[in-house]
Amino acid sequence: MSLLVVGSVALDTVETPFGKRDEMLGGSAVYCALAASHFADVKLVGVVGNDFPYDAIVLLQERNIDLSGLETKPGKTFRWSGVYSDDMNERKTLYTALNVFEEFDPTIPDDARDTEYVFLGNISPALQRNVLEQMSGPQFVAMDTMNFWIDSAKTDLLDVLSKVHAVIINDSEARQLSGSTNLVKAARIIQQIGCPTVLIKKGEHGCFQRCGEECFVAPAYPLEAVLDPTGAGDTFAGGFMGHLARAGRSDPWTLREAVVSGSVMASFVVERFGVDNLLQLTDAAIQQRYDEFRALVSF
Amino acid sequence: MSLLVVGSVALDTVETPFGKRDEMLGGSAVYCALAASHFADVKLVGVVGNDFPYDAIVLLQERNIDLSGLETKPGKTFRWSGVYSDDMNERKTLYTALNVFEEFDPTIPDDARDTEYVFLGNISPALQRNVLEQMSGPQFVAMDTMNFWIDSAKTDLLDVLSKVHAVIINDSEARQLSGSTNLVKAARIIQQIGCPTVLIKKGEHGCFQRCGEECFVAPAYPLEAVLDPTGAGDTFAGGFMGHLARAGRSDPWTLREAVVSGSVMASFVVERFGVDNLLQLTDAAIQQRYDEFRALVSF
Repeated sequence: MSLLVVGSVALDTVETPFGKRDEMLGGSAVYCALAASHFADVKLVGVVGNDFPYDAIVLLQERNIDLSGLETKPGKTFRWSGVYSDDMNERKTLYTALNVFEEFDPTIPDDARDTEYVFLGNISPALQRNVLEQMSGPQFVAMDTMNFWIDSAKTDLLDVLSKVHAVIINDSEARQLSGSTNLVKAARIIQQIGCPTVLIKKGEHGCFQRCGEECFVAPAYPLEAVLDPTGAGDTFAGGFMGHLARAGRSDPWTLREAVVSGSVMASFVVERFGVDNLLQLTDAAIQQRYDEFRALVSF
Repeated sequence: MSLLVVGSVALDTVETPFGKRDEMLGGSAVYCALAASHFADVKLVGVVGNDFPYDAIVLLQERNIDLSGLETKPGKTFRWSGVYSDDMNERKTLYTALNVFEEFDPTIPDDARDTEYVFLGNISPALQRNVLEQMSGPQFVAMDTMNFWIDSAKTDLLDVLSKVHAVIINDSEARQLSGSTNLVKAARIIQQIGCPTVLIKKGEHGCFQRCGEECFVAPAYPLEAVLDPTGAGDTFAGGFMGHLARAGRSDPWTLREAVVSGSVMASFVVERFGVDNLLQLTDAAIQQRYDEFRALVSF
């Protein structure tokens, strides 16, 4: 089955202790779509300015990503720049220029409205709801969000949370949203809003999933060096949603496997700059690392 | 086979958001020995003052712990008091009165010198080495340490590290000892000192073990509430070492199973105050939670 991804398309300037890259292809929808493209057919909904490089379009098309929902507007593409600390544990945003993304109002192409799997990237809860209202009964919808929306649009956010099947957030967002420092409890509180599956990303500590009463823990892949952590969370979401769309089901066991596929893709993306690793991965490499995840927790 | 545990025996006064307890039985050797007693025969080497309550002796003997290495000295028993923050993430020490523990100079009883498995609790590296020199070729020795010894006795510490089979430390100690913020790399650096197996405890994020080139990750058991985290690390060590002593081997696969037994015991101890849960656990409850750990990571 297919996956629809809605979110940002950006040009990122990133500096890490391992180097600097200017105006790389980035954005939540891009990382998610590229990761998912290794598992299923993907449709990307986003907006770029008329300065968006043609090369980037070609890269996405070479991964068979359907770009009929990618609008081009007069103006500049969303740009973001950040620098990571020496130990990679802190990230400082140097600038965020929303440009055409500021007025993003996602329109789902007619022939994409029946897409079975949907990922709502980190956009305003009101826009996430607009997207949902354009869809005709998707099988499984997951959403992302961030501290900014938890602070500024809580009512809309809770409403969207009650309409989706899963939320994928990081540990600090889960604590902020739930008011609980204990992540197991935080997940339960978020479930009580009406979202049956909660995935909490913990960076180097892996991922915690609560699906009904059932808990699942996946480790992070043990990497001695991370070259560029940008997009790891969106890549995780892409692997997760792509796995579900390929499987065509979202029972608790498949959700566990999908968490591992998400973890696999996230572990690959941080080994190189930007989306580089997502463009050249083979199915065999993905399967091999999936098996390594099993070995990592076996006893 | 048997396990020899060397470390502190204390009376702890602890306050958590869930209550306060005065002068509970505590100390690293006590938590470790009680946890291990569910797996193997345990011999405890430590020191107490002549104020040490007889009830506490009875509790330890009821768990069949051999106390012939527990010295009683004139003076007071080691006392510690701490208070936990509302979210349990911070602990403030109110007082530490070493008392007779200040002059602790462990003497291993003659008939305990051939004990096959040894755990060196958090005492000075010089004393840990003295213990090792009294033993006649144990099969497997693991050690703990802390930031104080990393700062103040680094040379001795590195020497002891090169003589043991495993070190069990927490994440901040691993970072401090190795100089690396990346825990995978930290473990490798510590291995290079000469300690083949490194276990890094990460609290709510579980445990990471590097054994040769092989990595193993165990989650923490998902608990919505922790009543009292005191002694969790020593209890982990007790479950780990007890498992190895029961198995009578320490190959990489058994080390993995031992990490899970350690995690099981740590998950139990924090559910009640002090050592309470370690006194009443059944083999069936331990086995059931061990199986739950497997379910928690299965995919």
